[in-house]
Amino acid sequence: MGKGSKYGTHRVIEPKGTLPQPALKISNDMNIFDNEILIDVDYLNIDSASFTQLREEAQDDVKKIGEKIKSIVNERGKMQNPVTGSGGMLIGKVEEIGEVLKEKTDLQVGDKIATLVSLSLTPLRIDKILNIQLDIDRVEIDGKAILFESGIYAKLPEDMEDTLALAILDVAGAPAQVKNLVKPANTVLVLGATGKSGLMCSLMAKNIVGIKGKVIGQARNEKRAKFLRDTQFCDEVIIADILKPVEVLEGVYAVNDGKEVDISINCLSIPNTEMSSILPVKDDGIVYFFSMATSFTKAALGAEGIGKDVKMLIGCGYAKNHAQISLDLVRKSETLRNIFKEKYV
Amino acid sequence: MGKGSKYGTHRVIEPKGTLPQPALKISNDMNIFDNEILIDVDYLNIDSASFTQLREEAQDDVKKIGEKIKSIVNERGKMQNPVTGSGGMLIGKVEEIGEVLKEKTDLQVGDKIATLVSLSLTPLRIDKILNIQLDIDRVEIDGKAILFESGIYAKLPEDMEDTLALAILDVAGAPAQVKNLVKPANTVLVLGATGKSGLMCSLMAKNIVGIKGKVIGQARNEKRAKFLRDTQFCDEVIIADILKPVEVLEGVYAVNDGKEVDISINCLSIPNTEMSSILPVKDDGIVYFFSMATSFTKAALGAEGIGKDVKMLIGCGYAKNHAQISLDLVRKSETLRNIFKEKYV
Repeated sequence: MGKGSKYGTHRVIEPKGTLPQPALKISNDMNIFDNEILIDVDYLNIDSASFTQLREEAQDDVKKIGEKIKSIVNERGKMQNPVTGSGGMLIGKVEEIGEVLKEKTDLQVGDKIATLVSLSLTPLRIDKILNIQLDIDRVEIDGKAILFESGIYAKLPEDMEDTLALAILDVAGAPAQVKNLVKPANTVLVLGATGKSGLMCSLMAKNIVGIKGKVIGQARNEKRAKFLRDTQFCDEVIIADILKPVEVLEGVYAVNDGKEVDISINCLSIPNTEMSSILPVKDDGIVYFFSMATSFTKAALGAEGIGKDVKMLIGCGYAKNHAQISLDLVRKSETLRNIFKEKYV
Repeated sequence: MGKGSKYGTHRVIEPKGTLPQPALKISNDMNIFDNEILIDVDYLNIDSASFTQLREEAQDDVKKIGEKIKSIVNERGKMQNPVTGSGGMLIGKVEEIGEVLKEKTDLQVGDKIATLVSLSLTPLRIDKILNIQLDIDRVEIDGKAILFESGIYAKLPEDMEDTLALAILDVAGAPAQVKNLVKPANTVLVLGATGKSGLMCSLMAKNIVGIKGKVIGQARNEKRAKFLRDTQFCDEVIIADILKPVEVLEGVYAVNDGKEVDISINCLSIPNTEMSSILPVKDDGIVYFFSMATSFTKAALGAEGIGKDVKMLIGCGYAKNHAQISLDLVRKSETLRNIFKEKYV
């Protein structure tokens, strides 16, 4: 087929000149270019914001969700939710490696991998939907997908189940970024600390800040707070309504000697939580938005409105070595591993 | 009146527990709390997105625009356009300073100031609309406004006209952030370098990077490129369609020895320019989005999609000393001052 663009632009059908992610339609022709990899897909892990939207629209009717997914993929050539714009990831086996990549890649035909680029830009063909597991956002299919030359992936580790590895890889960007951002002795606020990425970020932050620092985890009610306290991933746990920034701020004050924090990390999938992330951070501090429900303008105008000079970062699913960093975090914590096995596998 | 909240939450009428900016209705009672400042308003500078919407709705009928503005302020207690959500800024004289602030503030009764927090959260009462200048989004009024304790402002300088100072303050956050982000010897790409904030960012970056660094300005056509070259604010000028990330990348390669840049700064008000900002930046580099048209998800998924580990920052209208930094930048550059006088005053 010849060599395609490193970034997959050769597959963009509409509009021309864009990259595959923002494109409305890409080609899911499964004849690969010389720098592409063909994957025989086992299942899709739909992004949480997207899956929530699909479930709401279909009122949890599994058949309707399946039809909607098929219609999206037929129309766009990729599983990108038109409402949320988001995708997810997939698991499958390497079926064919393009000529140009054979010498460059560490992959072999038959390797089981998870693609770590978003489904929102991955050429996908669904032949049949086999099963949809509502509780873990998973869609088992017969189908094929394409990985571009720039596409990142992880070989699934042999010391844990696929499902566990996947649940970890799904949010691997967050703890890896936390590792880059948080310094010893920092005070760190994790919003949505009881969720999947929240737990990983809390533990990662706790490992870094040391005894001179402090990790404060936010939970929405006493039950979740107890669960979080039991993990011991946070030094302090506060209960606060995330839609009430002043309540969050006061919760932080109560456990942090009346002071603001150095860094806040938003791990929620809830809209309108920008101010709750910004308000409790001190001037010159960092606000890290890992939530895909974040609104750029609400964050920008919100910080301006209260005259805060904070560094606001757009979270991204990728950071160098993020797969390794996150898998190791879970390997080393029995508590985290058990929670993942119980809740997300 | 007692002391109110630093952030003005004591004036929120609906919904309770939110901050003044997202609130639907706030109190514009002009009896001030002890940590508020009362302003006698001269005029409002309506945010460009808001004013465009008002003009369209009223089909440029000045009387209708005035009535609409009055009805919004009557309903909300602030000039926040219900369609765009945005506000603007105001100019006026300090009329009264709350007891608690008298010792803390550098303001005196009678000082002429511009409020640098958005009108979308500023308690405002309009007694009369005196004049509306369609071409510069300005509404002269008889009226009063309140500045909260956290509210930022700038005293209008005496060495330049109000209109020039205002045009500068309007985008003051961008060059101040550039001052924080850019280091000597960096290679910096400014997207939309020919616009108001783009020119300021280019010049600020040029002042910092020195002869070992390089500032690359993007312009959309030869006419704009010539204008930009004449300013000498950039070391290199490239012409590229901002909606074509690959074209932008190739433009950068052409003037930067085939290499990516350390920092890109998006100063455009154009949607779908996230990838053009991310693609030309090297791993570990910084992408600074000053554009309010930025989509959080497009940026997050875009970087993930091409496997880039870059720090993506949400630009904000405020940074410490931003008014001073920006006014000084214009004071010191006759070229910049003349462009502002000619184009934006």
